Amino acid sequence: MQPKLAPPAADPAFRAALDGLELIDDPAQRRLRSRDFYWYSPILKRELDGKAADLIVVPRSIDEVVRVAGACARFGVPLGVRGGGTGNYGQMVPLQGGVLLDMGKLDRTLWIERGRGRFEAGVKLIDADVQAQQQGWELRMFPSTRRQATVGGYVCGGAAGVGSIRYGQLRDAGSVLALKVVTCEETPRLVELRGADIGKALHAYGTTGIVVEVELALAPAWPWVEMVVAFDDFATAAHFAQALGESDGIFLKLASLMAWPLPRYFRGLEDALPDGRHVVMIMAAASGVSGVRSLVAEHGGTVTLERPYTEDPGRTPLYEYTWNHTTLQALKIDKTLTYLQTIFPLGANVEALIASHELFGEEVMAHAEFQRRQGRTNCSSLQVVRYTSDERLWQIVHQLDGLGIRLSNPHSYILEDKGARVLSADLQLQFKHESDPHGLLNPGKMSRWTSSPSLAEQGGRP
Amino acid sequence: MQPKLAPPAADPAFRAALDGLELIDDPAQRRLRSRDFYWYSPILKRELDGKAADLIVVPRSIDEVVRVAGACARFGVPLGVRGGGTGNYGQMVPLQGGVLLDMGKLDRTLWIERGRGRFEAGVKLIDADVQAQQQGWELRMFPSTRRQATVGGYVCGGAAGVGSIRYGQLRDAGSVLALKVVTCEETPRLVELRGADIGKALHAYGTTGIVVEVELALAPAWPWVEMVVAFDDFATAAHFAQALGESDGIFLKLASLMAWPLPRYFRGLEDALPDGRHVVMIMAAASGVSGVRSLVAEHGGTVTLERPYTEDPGRTPLYEYTWNHTTLQALKIDKTLTYLQTIFPLGANVEALIASHELFGEEVMAHAEFQRRQGRTNCSSLQVVRYTSDERLWQIVHQLDGLGIRLSNPHSYILEDKGARVLSADLQLQFKHESDPHGLLNPGKMSRWTSSPSLAEQGGRP
Repeated sequence: MQPKLAPPAADPAFRAALDGLELIDDPAQRRLRSRDFYWYSPILKRELDGKAADLIVVPRSIDEVVRVAGACARFGVPLGVRGGGTGNYGQMVPLQGGVLLDMGKLDRTLWIERGRGRFEAGVKLIDADVQAQQQGWELRMFPSTRRQATVGGYVCGGAAGVGSIRYGQLRDAGSVLALKVVTCEETPRLVELRGADIGKALHAYGTTGIVVEVELALAPAWPWVEMVVAFDDFATAAHFAQALGESDGIFLKLASLMAWPLPRYFRGLEDALPDGRHVVMIMAAASGVSGVRSLVAEHGGTVTLERPYTEDPGRTPLYEYTWNHTTLQALKIDKTLTYLQTIFPLGANVEALIASHELFGEEVMAHAEFQRRQGRTNCSSLQVVRYTSDERLWQIVHQLDGLGIRLSNPHSYILEDKGARVLSADLQLQFKHESDPHGLLNPGKMSRWTSSPSLAEQGGRP
Repeated sequence: MQPKLAPPAADPAFRAALDGLELIDDPAQRRLRSRDFYWYSPILKRELDGKAADLIVVPRSIDEVVRVAGACARFGVPLGVRGGGTGNYGQMVPLQGGVLLDMGKLDRTLWIERGRGRFEAGVKLIDADVQAQQQGWELRMFPSTRRQATVGGYVCGGAAGVGSIRYGQLRDAGSVLALKVVTCEETPRLVELRGADIGKALHAYGTTGIVVEVELALAPAWPWVEMVVAFDDFATAAHFAQALGESDGIFLKLASLMAWPLPRYFRGLEDALPDGRHVVMIMAAASGVSGVRSLVAEHGGTVTLERPYTEDPGRTPLYEYTWNHTTLQALKIDKTLTYLQTIFPLGANVEALIASHELFGEEVMAHAEFQRRQGRTNCSSLQVVRYTSDERLWQIVHQLDGLGIRLSNPHSYILEDKGARVLSADLQLQFKHESDPHGLLNPGKMSRWTSSPSLAEQGGRP
């Protein structure tokens, strides 16, 4: 179903329905808040530059979210949601204008206890973590953008992160414990999702409901140490990273592999990044440092950095060179670069990594984030690519595919291009018919909704 | 090298060398303290019954251990070490008499900080854990015998335990951080082993040195919940246990699978063990309970017990039905039972489990402890066997081998029969030439020492 044409944000009846809410009409502010980091991709840059909401609403309570959702349903106005705006695929960029909810003031931590925490969607991940730590807990995983990103944005647009090397994926059972969503109907409902139902809204880009509260599993707080290890040889570095990930005796939060010359782009860490060497960036539990050192010695590497991890505003934490920050650090130095995002074959990921490094050399700079997937140590890759043309980029993708390395397309804003599991995709499409019958939530992002005849219109509502 | 004949414990010169130490000559006490739980095995029972030390010494300091070791070296007296006496293979049973050190009074916790703890060898594991918990930490793994077993005994005679489902094996890098050992020489040395050198004394049954201090990696304390899940079908239960182990989003301490009729032997837990059902016993982080419940629902099981884990002297903790306690619980009811201990093929362990269950039925009651091995979720098994004859027992072993299930022989007191890695075996043999040149430490347990010409005597000291 196509959404009805959005009325101008100036429509007096629509404005009246939002009376008393914090509204932003200023064009510069609207453009600014309608963007994320999609500009890493020259393709998305072309497609998304200039897209903006007609009106920003900054709710301060769930009741206000409900008022906005009800108004949009009644008036047929597209409705999007913005957290910290740190996504990379235009997850929250409004394709059809309309209203954008800025969740930044829905930022209360509701409670933290016995390994669980419940947060309003707009709580920044770093604040959630600090508050948890004050009670002896910590987030099990977070994106490298945690200083800006929100809890709600992470569960709607993220998949894994710093911590995934031990706690796996955000979608794994036990990771996200509950989501409270507001539906987009004339009379919006509040729905509490738990268990397998979490998949209805997790990693759905806000197309199936407005996530207003998130309950996360926490870990007891570990003391972490940042380490960098350098290797002469890429294959050795890759085997080391895999062996490290498989070392159950060493509790880890981060294991990131960067092929030379990627480290050349990393400002502020030069002493730890010797010329011409491939590096592995590590966060290990303090008690695991001697174990890491033993493993490094066994593999013939050199420890070039070892320091306690602290969240010091004056220092760039090691994780801000990893995950999607790797690409950002490189782009700061060289604007012609872009990147890919890929998933590796289970049980053969190291071999595939080495083969791709040998095939492409410096054109596709290997960058792998080691993590648990389906109970195994695997990696995904955010390769930094010397961009020449779209044609060459897709040729690289094709060649990677030949090595068993599958694209999780970072040059697309379409939900289904991100490797969402079929189970979730079915669940989400089905739920959208109940939660967003007019198709107003983040329209244009869920291709199965856009392309398929509406079950609701056929009377086939599930 | 064969040890020299032990002088009678009454030799005045030898007794004079031990002047002022706590000595025990009483025959009943000597017999009692010279035993462990080898009697699970009818074979070991025949071989080890009646073996006893000539003299028990109860040291109160490392200095006293040094005095005993020096005296034994000078007088050529065999020297063994006893912790809690909870081993199952006669690890500490003195085969040739001599002196047995009872480490029970070397029981100081030296320090606990930032995920590490250092303990004298005689500290009971439960006390180490309670002391760690008072500071917000906990042991990463322990044997089911933790209420009696000591830290030193565990690292000398144990391999894994409750906690291995996330932290892997005791031998994995990062698990044991240091061992302090006293050598058995005329002038004994104190040697601090770290890194790969830990393998010189870890799981060596005290044949390569007297472990007097142990430094362990700790975890931040998790709140745990005990759960029992029942299944109609063994194969489903086995697949569930594997899937649970592979669920990185659920932090676990225990995942034990017991085929019916094993649960029939478990007193005190009857309500949670429905007739004819196969069960999985679980300790999960409190925040993981909903994740476990989702997975149970997916596999069609029933949660029959869910209660917070507390160490209550009046209640049998769930872990006391698991690991080697499973066999003990069964033996309490039926003295004719015995057991096997086996290692499963990586990546095919569930299939092997199911095949063995189908092949043997109730003669070999499946009992699998799920754990991380080499970074993967695998299991080892402590099958409870209806014993008929030695011949039939070895026939079963042969048939299991045909399914890829390898024996880690619990009917042998020989170190090398326990699947010690070749690397450790080489390291241990080599170290023994330095640490125990007269071959007095726990003689008869290390077959490579007993059977090979001494490198030391050939002048080939490594």
